[in-house]
Amino acid sequence: MNVAPSGPPRVVWPAELPGYRVEFGRAAPMVLDCGATLGPFTIAYQTYGTLNADKTNAVLACHALTGDQYLMGIHPVTGKPGWWEHMVGPGKPIDTERYFVICANVLGGCMGTTGPKNIDPATGKPWGLSFPVITVADIVRAQKLLIDHLGIDQLFCVTGGSMGAMQALQWAASYPERVFSAVPIAGAARHSAQNIAFHEVGRQAIMADPDWCEGDYQSHDKVPHRGLAVARMAAHVTYLSEAALHRKFGRNLQDREKLSYGFEADFEVESYLRHQGSTFVERFDANSYLYITRAMDYFDLVSEHEGVLANAFKGSKTRFCVISFTSDWLFPTSESRTIVRALNAVAANVSFVEVKSDKGHDAFLLDEVEFFKTLNGFLDGCAEHRGLKRP
Amino acid sequence: MNVAPSGPPRVVWPAELPGYRVEFGRAAPMVLDCGATLGPFTIAYQTYGTLNADKTNAVLACHALTGDQYLMGIHPVTGKPGWWEHMVGPGKPIDTERYFVICANVLGGCMGTTGPKNIDPATGKPWGLSFPVITVADIVRAQKLLIDHLGIDQLFCVTGGSMGAMQALQWAASYPERVFSAVPIAGAARHSAQNIAFHEVGRQAIMADPDWCEGDYQSHDKVPHRGLAVARMAAHVTYLSEAALHRKFGRNLQDREKLSYGFEADFEVESYLRHQGSTFVERFDANSYLYITRAMDYFDLVSEHEGVLANAFKGSKTRFCVISFTSDWLFPTSESRTIVRALNAVAANVSFVEVKSDKGHDAFLLDEVEFFKTLNGFLDGCAEHRGLKRP
Repeated sequence: MNVAPSGPPRVVWPAELPGYRVEFGRAAPMVLDCGATLGPFTIAYQTYGTLNADKTNAVLACHALTGDQYLMGIHPVTGKPGWWEHMVGPGKPIDTERYFVICANVLGGCMGTTGPKNIDPATGKPWGLSFPVITVADIVRAQKLLIDHLGIDQLFCVTGGSMGAMQALQWAASYPERVFSAVPIAGAARHSAQNIAFHEVGRQAIMADPDWCEGDYQSHDKVPHRGLAVARMAAHVTYLSEAALHRKFGRNLQDREKLSYGFEADFEVESYLRHQGSTFVERFDANSYLYITRAMDYFDLVSEHEGVLANAFKGSKTRFCVISFTSDWLFPTSESRTIVRALNAVAANVSFVEVKSDKGHDAFLLDEVEFFKTLNGFLDGCAEHRGLKRP
Repeated sequence: MNVAPSGPPRVVWPAELPGYRVEFGRAAPMVLDCGATLGPFTIAYQTYGTLNADKTNAVLACHALTGDQYLMGIHPVTGKPGWWEHMVGPGKPIDTERYFVICANVLGGCMGTTGPKNIDPATGKPWGLSFPVITVADIVRAQKLLIDHLGIDQLFCVTGGSMGAMQALQWAASYPERVFSAVPIAGAARHSAQNIAFHEVGRQAIMADPDWCEGDYQSHDKVPHRGLAVARMAAHVTYLSEAALHRKFGRNLQDREKLSYGFEADFEVESYLRHQGSTFVERFDANSYLYITRAMDYFDLVSEHEGVLANAFKGSKTRFCVISFTSDWLFPTSESRTIVRALNAVAANVSFVEVKSDKGHDAFLLDEVEFFKTLNGFLDGCAEHRGLKRP
C-alpha cells in the first residue's frame, strides 16, 4: 500500500551549495528578540543583476516559509526552477537588467544560513532545539547586517510574498530610512489565530514522529520525514484555493477508471498531495520548519507598536505597494487592507491592488499577468523617482 | 516540553456501552458497494421519545464523521453532553415529546456498530484493514435494515449535518418512498477536491504513526494516538471559521504574560487544538477514522446518477429543507445551492435557508437560534401534513 513516504530522502545534495556566504557576529554577537545572542553565524545569499555605481538599484527579495535564496535559475538541490523564476530575470517584472536583486536564506533556514541543523560552535554538536527561537525581526536584523556588508545605504525595494511580506513590513518599520520602497504581497501585519492553528498542526505532526527524537534526530542519525511530509501536506492545502483545487483536480481519479475501495491514492488530489509531502522532505529540515513557522506565529507589528499599527510607519518616507489576491483565504485581502489603513493613517505613500486570481495564496509564486503588471508598474514609477536609468 | 499527546488514553470505557444492539446479515450477508459481503454485523443505536402507534413519527438523526449514537444525555465514554444536546429533547427543536428519534452508530464506526476494530468472525481477529471499504450508501443500507427491523414503513424525517447530510441525501435518493422529509444540513452532494485533500492529510497523519502498524495495531497492542491526534487537529481547524477562531482566541496567550520563545503552547488556540487532539484519541478508533473519511470522499451522488444530480431525486415526494451556514467554508452554501437547484429541476418540494452564523461548519452542532427556528418550523409544517399530534 502507498502510504506516507518512508525510507531516506532520494535527492543527493551537492557537496557544497553554490552562492555567497558571509559570516557575522564573531566580534559582537547579534542580540535576538528572545534575549539570547547569536554569533558567529553565516548568511547564505544569491545576487542577480549588477549593483550600480551609486548602489541605488538593490532589490531585496524575501522568501517565504519554505523558500530559499535560489529564486531564479535551476535550484541546486531540487533541479527545478527557482521560486520566483516568473518574476525575476532579464526583461521580467523585476528586471535584472535594471535592478540588483539580493535574496538571502533566512536565519533559522536550512540552505546555508545558520539554523538548527548547523553545528553550534559552543558545543560542536548540531543546534537542534537549543537553537534560539527567532522572530521575523531577527531575520530582518540579520539581513540588515548583510546589506551593511554590501555597502548599500538604502535598498531600492524590499519585497516578498507571505512571510516575505512580513519581512518587507518589518524592514519598513525597523529601518525606514533604509527602504526606498516596499511591496508586501499576500501578507499580514500579524499572524491570525487560524494561521497559528494551521502551523501548530504542522509542528505537532513533526513532533509526533518518533524519528524527531525530541529535536535531536541528527545525533540519532534519523530524519522525521513522515511527520515533516504530513506537515507539508497540511500546509499545502491552505496555499491553494478551493476553486484551483477543483479546476486542477476535481474528483478525477489517478491512473485508474474506478475507485479502488482501498486507501491508495484514488484521487489525483491525493496523489498530488503525497508528492508534495515526499519531495519536500528531500530539501527541508524539520527543525527549520518548527523555527520558521514559530517566527511567523510570533509576528505581530501591532503589539510591537503599542497596539497601533500606524505607529509602525509614522513619518515613513517609504513608498508602499500592498498587493493581495482575491482567492487567498490564508492571507485574505482584509489583512492587506488593515496594513493600507494603517499607512493611510500616517499619510504614507501607498498604493493597494487586490489582484483577481483563483489561485489562492500561492498566486504570488505563479504566472499572474495583472500581478506582474502591478509590480512592474510600481517599480518603474519608483525607479524614475530614484533616478535609475532604464536598461 | 509539551508536545504531541503521548501515553495511553486516560478515559476508562464502560465495560459495556449502553443502548440497543441488533445483529443483521447472518442469514443473508449485506452486499456492499465494493462488491464484498458483510455479515453478521451489529448496529448499535439509541432512541429518544416514543414511537407512536402508527409508527409515523420517527426521525432518523444521522451523525457526522466523529459523532456517534449518543446525541443527547451524558455520553457514556466522555462524560460530556451528546453532540445534538441543543437540538434534540423535550421542547427542543426536534421535540422528543412529539418525535421518536433514532440515532445509529454508522457502519465502520467504533461505538458498537461493526467496524474495523471489531473481531472478524471468519478469522477470530480484529478486522483492521481487512474490513471492507464502505460507502455512505452502505451506511444507509445498514440503517435501512434497522428501520425495517423497527417496523417503520416511512421515516418522518432523515436529518443530519456534514456526513449526516450526505446520509439524508442518500436516503432520499435510494429509498424515496421511505422518507417523508429530509433535512440535509451543511452538506454536499459530492465531496470536493479540497475536502478530499484535508481528509487525506488526516489519513496520512495516522498512517505515518509507526504505532499504526500498517493498520494492525490491535494485534500489536498499540494505539496510533499521536497520528490520530494530529489528524483530529488538522480537521478541527477546518470546522471553525476564521472569525470564530479570531473571536474565541485571537492571539491571546495561554496562562502567560509573555511569549515563551519556545515550542510550548504559547497561544490559547494552540492549547485548544492540542486538547482537541488528545481528548479525541480517548474515544475514537484510528482505523474507523480512515474508513469513515474514505466513505465521505467516495460520496458522489452526481456520478451515481449519470452525471445529473437531479436524476437522484426524480419523482421524489419527499419534502426537503436544505440548510447551510454563511461562514462554513468546508461545506459552503454553494454546495447546498447545487442540491437545491437539482431538486428544483425535478420540481421537488424544497425550501432552502442559508443561516447567518460566524461559527463555521461546526454551527450545526451549536446553539444557533435562526437554525433552530428554521428546522423546528419546517418539521412543524411537515408534522401537520403527516397528521402528527402536537404534544
